[in-house]
Amino acid sequence: MIDFNKPYLTGKEVHYIYDAVHNELHISGNGKYTKLCQEFFEKQYGFRKCLLTTSCTTALEMAAILCDIKPGDEVIMPSYTFVSTANAFVLHGARIVFCDSKSYHPSIDEYKIEELITPKTKAIVPVHYAGTACDMDKIMTIANRHNILVVEDAAQAIDNYYTGEDSIKKTLGSIGHLAAFSFHETKNVISGEGGMLVINDPQFEKRAEIIWEKGTNRAAFFRGEIDKYGWVDKGSSFLPSEIIAAFLFAQLENIEKIQARRIETWNRYYNGLKIIENYGIGLPYIPDFSGNNAHMFYLVCPSLEARTKLIEHLKNNDIYTVFHYLSLHKSVFYNTQYKGKELPNSDLYSDCLLRLPLFFELSNAEIDFVIEKILNYIMNK
Amino acid sequence: MIDFNKPYLTGKEVHYIYDAVHNELHISGNGKYTKLCQEFFEKQYGFRKCLLTTSCTTALEMAAILCDIKPGDEVIMPSYTFVSTANAFVLHGARIVFCDSKSYHPSIDEYKIEELITPKTKAIVPVHYAGTACDMDKIMTIANRHNILVVEDAAQAIDNYYTGEDSIKKTLGSIGHLAAFSFHETKNVISGEGGMLVINDPQFEKRAEIIWEKGTNRAAFFRGEIDKYGWVDKGSSFLPSEIIAAFLFAQLENIEKIQARRIETWNRYYNGLKIIENYGIGLPYIPDFSGNNAHMFYLVCPSLEARTKLIEHLKNNDIYTVFHYLSLHKSVFYNTQYKGKELPNSDLYSDCLLRLPLFFELSNAEIDFVIEKILNYIMNK
Repeated sequence: MIDFNKPYLTGKEVHYIYDAVHNELHISGNGKYTKLCQEFFEKQYGFRKCLLTTSCTTALEMAAILCDIKPGDEVIMPSYTFVSTANAFVLHGARIVFCDSKSYHPSIDEYKIEELITPKTKAIVPVHYAGTACDMDKIMTIANRHNILVVEDAAQAIDNYYTGEDSIKKTLGSIGHLAAFSFHETKNVISGEGGMLVINDPQFEKRAEIIWEKGTNRAAFFRGEIDKYGWVDKGSSFLPSEIIAAFLFAQLENIEKIQARRIETWNRYYNGLKIIENYGIGLPYIPDFSGNNAHMFYLVCPSLEARTKLIEHLKNNDIYTVFHYLSLHKSVFYNTQYKGKELPNSDLYSDCLLRLPLFFELSNAEIDFVIEKILNYIMNK
Repeated sequence: MIDFNKPYLTGKEVHYIYDAVHNELHISGNGKYTKLCQEFFEKQYGFRKCLLTTSCTTALEMAAILCDIKPGDEVIMPSYTFVSTANAFVLHGARIVFCDSKSYHPSIDEYKIEELITPKTKAIVPVHYAGTACDMDKIMTIANRHNILVVEDAAQAIDNYYTGEDSIKKTLGSIGHLAAFSFHETKNVISGEGGMLVINDPQFEKRAEIIWEKGTNRAAFFRGEIDKYGWVDKGSSFLPSEIIAAFLFAQLENIEKIQARRIETWNRYYNGLKIIENYGIGLPYIPDFSGNNAHMFYLVCPSLEARTKLIEHLKNNDIYTVFHYLSLHKSVFYNTQYKGKELPNSDLYSDCLLRLPLFFELSNAEIDFVIEKILNYIMNK
């Protein structure tokens, strides 16, 4: 049986948890391992400031608070995304303005953003779907022209890059004013549940830390910058336990190994399946401006029916594949509130995109078996 | 050196984490250990439905969403409480109406609640300070008379009881429409960071699960009640990782032992320090309607100056004591918004309350040493 996902363990996760629990005796948030993880990201990827959170969802909620989202404010994002991208802003009263996907990629169509901007638009939230970069030069230009904030939903985009017009390679998550990452167990690097907010715009640096610490200036107090701490702003308990941070740190120490193997797997799928493009099945497209972090390998089937049959065929061969994301503008929760245009590309990916198994320990033999079963099915129909 | 708090480990925490990670291969939320913890609470304490959360703060945020808090709604709570009690409702636009503490106990003065009710009042949030019960009969009567919801902030109140006019012992957290518990490392039973929402009013049962699962009906889908799931409501990622739930379950298996020792410790403090009441120092008061879960042992000093000197004296003897909570209505964040009366009892506890070391592994010799140093100081002044 080939599962869709299997969490990869480096072997040191429980060892570091043991250290946090038994040696450090610190298991609430913001201790040794939280700091180690945050420093890792700041040094490795040049993020200005990182704060671990309990999930990518809550990192996006912190972003919504920092963007000062108020009832009636509008936020532009793709309709083809996880519910959390929208929920984080809906919780603060935002009206979500959904944008279509590109015809050649499930992420937001940069050419359709500007027409959605109104005087109420507060933020644009591009989602780097499958870890593939959105065209950040285009998005930042639009945002700057209209004085709008950009929050990168980089849930799937760890260890990937964008190269824009200046030919400089920039880490995804370092370009928008704010960015959010996920370490959910289905991601490249994991901590079960977990996330991180990246603060690139220095105007948000102080406030982010306060919101993170339940609206108090406790962090500044412990650095000795102030002589007592108290309630100075809204906020929540966004800090994960040290237990979670310890687990994550073991993963981060192995990120190069993890990424190298995922990229091998991705390339093996790509080369093995390339021929099915001639049979009307789409493969992932990586634009020139994007690197590839091998978060996901997907197919785009010609129709919902074709996808359903392919899933069934693979399941009969003990291969578990999944689809996801139903266009949010058509969801039970939002369809009556949605007043915009049809979003045909978003609907296309909702109906037709299929994710293949991709995890660190997937063997070459297993990859080849998946490829073989897909080729047999598509080419013998 | 006698620290204020030391997290107690039963020994099986990391073992269960190992099981979740290596045997179950399930480390995101809502797996084996989450279910074991929730079932434990439902069976042991008769809570209708329990949902583990990433913190007590986020459990209170779920409560705020379930109470349908909208900008301008008013929520009544004590001023002498942790910032999270207020933040959870502030995040949803509530105006906080602060109530004074009782003269004889830091928790909300039940006789001062009703005068604060207006047509905009949506909820009352009594905090069972130090784990000691608020007078829930009084509070529920007022709430029912005005058709207002009650959310018990039971952060400190695990394994404790209220006995009202009907002489029936009721678990704290089972009386209000909703209740929130904390498993932060300073609590009786811990998971580093962690919390739980209790849903007692069946009207909230279905929606609570949806909000918990990021606004989707995923839980019903996995129970086979519906054939696909999607975005049906607002929500967030309130689920803790299985890693956290596994840790908590090891603690819950030992709750009787933990509670028995804490109560011994509390009683030893009480008997040893009783005499200082004659010297103007207050000891904890447990009303007849409340049990004692020995969450906290505190003194009430005659003044801020007296407290500061006592802290200093104990510190010179390597004993670490802490105060906390500055009246929230006087905080930097809320003092300009606060339009109510002076709250002298809240200010009294802000200035004068001192918490003594209290943790599972505190030895009798250490307790006696703390008692001795306090008695010497108070009686020889």
